[in-house]
Amino acid sequence: MSEKWLVEIIGGGLIGTSIALKIATIGGKVRIKDANPAHERVANELIGEALLPSDVEPSLVVVAVPVDTSPTVICRALMSNPSATVIDIGSIKTKVLLDVKTLWREKSPERPLSNFLPTHPMAGRELAGPDGARSDLFEGRAWAITPHDEVDSDVLALGQNLVGELGATPYLLSPEEHDRQVAMTSHLPQLLASALAGVLDEPLDLAGAGLRDMTRLASSDPAMWQPIFEANQNELTLLLSKVNESINQLVNQHFNRDAVLSFMTQGARGAARVPGKHGGVPRNYGTLSVVIPDAPGALARLFNHCADAKINIEDLRIEHSPGQETGLISLSVKPGDLSTLNNYLSTQGWHSTVLNKGN
Amino acid sequence: MSEKWLVEIIGGGLIGTSIALKIATIGGKVRIKDANPAHERVANELIGEALLPSDVEPSLVVVAVPVDTSPTVICRALMSNPSATVIDIGSIKTKVLLDVKTLWREKSPERPLSNFLPTHPMAGRELAGPDGARSDLFEGRAWAITPHDEVDSDVLALGQNLVGELGATPYLLSPEEHDRQVAMTSHLPQLLASALAGVLDEPLDLAGAGLRDMTRLASSDPAMWQPIFEANQNELTLLLSKVNESINQLVNQHFNRDAVLSFMTQGARGAARVPGKHGGVPRNYGTLSVVIPDAPGALARLFNHCADAKINIEDLRIEHSPGQETGLISLSVKPGDLSTLNNYLSTQGWHSTVLNKGN
Repeated sequence: MSEKWLVEIIGGGLIGTSIALKIATIGGKVRIKDANPAHERVANELIGEALLPSDVEPSLVVVAVPVDTSPTVICRALMSNPSATVIDIGSIKTKVLLDVKTLWREKSPERPLSNFLPTHPMAGRELAGPDGARSDLFEGRAWAITPHDEVDSDVLALGQNLVGELGATPYLLSPEEHDRQVAMTSHLPQLLASALAGVLDEPLDLAGAGLRDMTRLASSDPAMWQPIFEANQNELTLLLSKVNESINQLVNQHFNRDAVLSFMTQGARGAARVPGKHGGVPRNYGTLSVVIPDAPGALARLFNHCADAKINIEDLRIEHSPGQETGLISLSVKPGDLSTLNNYLSTQGWHSTVLNKGN
Repeated sequence: MSEKWLVEIIGGGLIGTSIALKIATIGGKVRIKDANPAHERVANELIGEALLPSDVEPSLVVVAVPVDTSPTVICRALMSNPSATVIDIGSIKTKVLLDVKTLWREKSPERPLSNFLPTHPMAGRELAGPDGARSDLFEGRAWAITPHDEVDSDVLALGQNLVGELGATPYLLSPEEHDRQVAMTSHLPQLLASALAGVLDEPLDLAGAGLRDMTRLASSDPAMWQPIFEANQNELTLLLSKVNESINQLVNQHFNRDAVLSFMTQGARGAARVPGKHGGVPRNYGTLSVVIPDAPGALARLFNHCADAKINIEDLRIEHSPGQETGLISLSVKPGDLSTLNNYLSTQGWHSTVLNKGN
């Protein structure tokens, strides 16, 4: 029971409702406000007995609305709750902070922005609405916290504490560094997935796992992404011009040996920077490909055998071939475990192939 | 025992050696030739008793050398084995066929190219060398067959038969259609993965599964890809200019609402064309996210529970958050199975969240 969490959430979408549900499970009190009265009623019914009564002032306000409207909502929350901490959860930070500062100077020129802490959880991209809200949505996720120069240290500590209570890992960085990172790690991949998918024409019988991986993001919701792209367009435009330039060089040099070698070497160097599991040294696993029949229980049998061999699977993915009633699964393990697992699976009747020995 | 397979493989790399091993297991006789005598000796030792004696003529020659040298090797094989079928397994088809035709007209102007069948297995991209060669490498894979106007019908039938014996599914299409398809499904994704990875700079703490999926291909071998890109540069340049144009429109319109909406809608339409499992209707699965502890046996327990619930997992992937000792796994199932599985996993103590309800 921790009565220190007296929370008001503004915006009853996936993120807002999930935060509310988690606050309720850790003994806090919480209420949700939403511009749509029906959404607000349903969301608050989910909270049940942990509902924060309307006459109790919140000590924390979470603004969970789209980034194009959040500056206004944040300033209104700061005005209405002068002693509360206000955090937002938007996907971009520099432009929102700038807009909040400008608005705040107009409304309250004498008071610093000490109670406002911008944050951004790396969760919930797959689903926009509140339907999938769950108290454990943030379990195992990274959560950026981007303090600015006026934030009070108690407010910062409270934000870090909240992120931990919600099950996520806090990462402190500046708003500019955040926007630069998400432009690279999230916005540019999103754009390139859409651009690639946009040139696809049927038939695509020869498509494999590579194309599926590269186009998965292209099914995302344009309404959610548009304000994000627009607000982060400076970072994005810079990255897109670099991408463009590297591709133009290839084309102009007719994909000759030197051009492709330098282009792909640069790419391999970048790919090696992408964090693997637990933020550790990436891509140092060995990989096995195993043929699996398409039937309930086949994966269970396979993973039971992996467990029998006492080997931890670090990563995996399924690859399907069109028109076949079997699939292939790639299992990544520590390089030292690779031949043990390969041999053990063979004795158990699996067809397994070493794809990559790891470093 | 099928003595009809008397096979010579030219090129003892991953594909060539894997074909040889499979031919040996189905009762055929096979020998491998390689420009490197040490490679040739080792590869032929793997074949053992199924080795085709050097004084026996092959009825099938498989040319498994890089695409920049294959036309010469193909024509030499056709000259040396006038009654045998010759197939290649190269990643591009139009330019190789053109070069073969030109060379062949010079060498043998009176004889048609009736014995030459171009093919391309969708396998082995992950590993270039012969180390990973396995008789079941092609199990569950698509294998393109691109007959030209001079191919004999018996030669075509033999090629289809071979692909089936190797465990793959044959797809018949024209060389032009093949090159157009692989430009979209393989070469362009490869280029965009390298281009994206090429602009990445550390730190990348906020990176998630999306970036890992989008940069996985960027670790591929430039030496293998360069001749492929160069030979297919017409298709590739066309696609790259479309990609470029769609991105330039976004930038020029400052990522405004209409521009992003039209760009992403086009992308979503393309993504929906990517074949899912068994070439069936793609992306109609529901998806659950489940928190998994990082310990041997955790996946086995999870898939045992899925099997207890009699539910077939159609697709899955692991997502890791940096710095956390847990991971998230996404399980895709038929939409009708989604709530059954979600409820059952909850009763078994798993934290599972519906990410996507499917169609």
